[in-house]
Amino acid sequence: MSADIIPLSRKTPEPASLDPMMALTAQGMNSVNAVILDRMQSEIPLIPALAGHLISGGGKRLRPMLTLAGAELVGYQGTRHHKLAAAVEFIHTATLLHDDVVDGSDLRRGKAAANIIFGNPATVLVGDFLFSRSFELMTEDGSLKVLKILSGASAIIAEGEVDQLTAQRKIETSEERYLQIIRAKTAALFAAASRIAAVVAECDESQERALDEYGRNLGVAFQLVDDAIDYDSDAAQMGKARGDDFREGKMTLPVILAYARGDTNEREFWKAAIGGHRTSNDDLAEAIALIEKYNAVADTRSRARHFAQRAIDAISIFPDGAARAAMGEAAQFAVSRGF
Amino acid sequence: MSADIIPLSRKTPEPASLDPMMALTAQGMNSVNAVILDRMQSEIPLIPALAGHLISGGGKRLRPMLTLAGAELVGYQGTRHHKLAAAVEFIHTATLLHDDVVDGSDLRRGKAAANIIFGNPATVLVGDFLFSRSFELMTEDGSLKVLKILSGASAIIAEGEVDQLTAQRKIETSEERYLQIIRAKTAALFAAASRIAAVVAECDESQERALDEYGRNLGVAFQLVDDAIDYDSDAAQMGKARGDDFREGKMTLPVILAYARGDTNEREFWKAAIGGHRTSNDDLAEAIALIEKYNAVADTRSRARHFAQRAIDAISIFPDGAARAAMGEAAQFAVSRGF
Repeated sequence: MSADIIPLSRKTPEPASLDPMMALTAQGMNSVNAVILDRMQSEIPLIPALAGHLISGGGKRLRPMLTLAGAELVGYQGTRHHKLAAAVEFIHTATLLHDDVVDGSDLRRGKAAANIIFGNPATVLVGDFLFSRSFELMTEDGSLKVLKILSGASAIIAEGEVDQLTAQRKIETSEERYLQIIRAKTAALFAAASRIAAVVAECDESQERALDEYGRNLGVAFQLVDDAIDYDSDAAQMGKARGDDFREGKMTLPVILAYARGDTNEREFWKAAIGGHRTSNDDLAEAIALIEKYNAVADTRSRARHFAQRAIDAISIFPDGAARAAMGEAAQFAVSRGF
Repeated sequence: MSADIIPLSRKTPEPASLDPMMALTAQGMNSVNAVILDRMQSEIPLIPALAGHLISGGGKRLRPMLTLAGAELVGYQGTRHHKLAAAVEFIHTATLLHDDVVDGSDLRRGKAAANIIFGNPATVLVGDFLFSRSFELMTEDGSLKVLKILSGASAIIAEGEVDQLTAQRKIETSEERYLQIIRAKTAALFAAASRIAAVVAECDESQERALDEYGRNLGVAFQLVDDAIDYDSDAAQMGKARGDDFREGKMTLPVILAYARGDTNEREFWKAAIGGHRTSNDDLAEAIALIEKYNAVADTRSRARHFAQRAIDAISIFPDGAARAAMGEAAQFAVSRGF
């Protein structure tokens, strides 16, 4: 036998990283974080306690980072976007708090969800507080155009969440309907967060639209991968309890694909499971096996790759450079998460 | 015996009425109601269904009426206030929907509460939708001053609601603390609704402040009487389930007064009741008896009279006329409700 050492081949390619985007926005994010910490305060101690549980809970703050990266991309020199990026994060935090109540989930980002520790009533009300604060921040900035974009996005997010609720436990939900839901509940805020960078920099309409499309496609890719991870037997845990979507009867793309591709018996299983009649660990294992059988996680990721590519292409109108490269890699990262 | 007919004396004076304020604002309220109906629509059918349950549920729409009455008082001739009054009502409706979830009440305005029919998740999310819509309406109007007033009021309302939650089941809550809570959770929106009338009419600062003070004091009076009615054995039912505050352990002024004036045994009863250990109908009957013994409903109403009078005096800087008279009688009505 030879003593030569043969290098091990990697099973997956080097995953894309969020690091370049984080480096690009690091200094600005310090200012954004200072605004967030300052403006989540209140004389009512329960408010910063509850808000801080989520806000200090290790989120990536991807949405405000999009505003800052967008500002770098268009060469904006001012600081107005720091307050607005904090407003974006407050809207996101408010929706997470309300989601925790709506979903009744036990975990959020690997920690106990706010409603488990503080109860539903306080969680709803602190969400309302952060939502109001976010509009106070925008009003202080004073751009009616930004206010229009973010109040519009907020209404669309709420519509998307209600729409998702309507589709819950409905096995007949189509891929098209699902995409419509996630464009509203997730991608609308990604789009708005990116777009407002062009607004504060007084870019022209085509640049505004390009940043909007970058964010919107990135948001869709991001949500698709989130939904894939919930059924991915290979995925590293992402801080949510595995199988939550399954037990809540949420119609996400892995289920939609596995159901569409399944035979009669398998479809009966899905109907029962999404209907709430198969919620044991064995049932979850069967669901994951069916999803693997039909490549539904891999194909959900491949759908995500399509949207990530559209995000990357949307910003090709801007000059090449560190900002565009970082934003491009962030889109690839959105797809490779969980490997 | 003489055949002369002696007129019966009335036990209580002719109660004040909201009719003059309703007549004053009737035409404008048609426009406001049209905006409300138009802007609560959505492609997601559950949204207008749920919002409509509350919005068509027989509320007096007192808050938008305050904006319209204020506009009459200052002689405003335009129509901008219609959209803004609808925004005020949307904020109010959103907080009512979230309150229904927070309180877990079964009834609202004498009908099943939204969360009983539609569930907590949809109720939270439709509240968020209406809240977003309200900021869209304000943004369309375009006054940053109005946006500042109403986003500030929204944050204060949420703080007041959280503060009330913190005080719940705490027998040591003082009258001062209670007033602080209701100034935030109720009076802030009354104040903002009134104040924005002066803003659209471009009044001077002293007129703005006068309308703010009218609304703020009226809001305090209104909430005090609401809280009195929940323990008033004489009061006509106001559409909420009698004894809700008692069972939820809410520290309202009738309880604060009866506890402060009670002897050792009575205080023990209140501690147990507010602590959640006395929730039967007999316990409620005992609570009402103690509140009567110490005149705590009558004295709560008399506190309300004080704030109503301050509301009336606040607008004395404006010329005498139909608007001022209607707003004055509305303040008296706030106190006489429930007789």
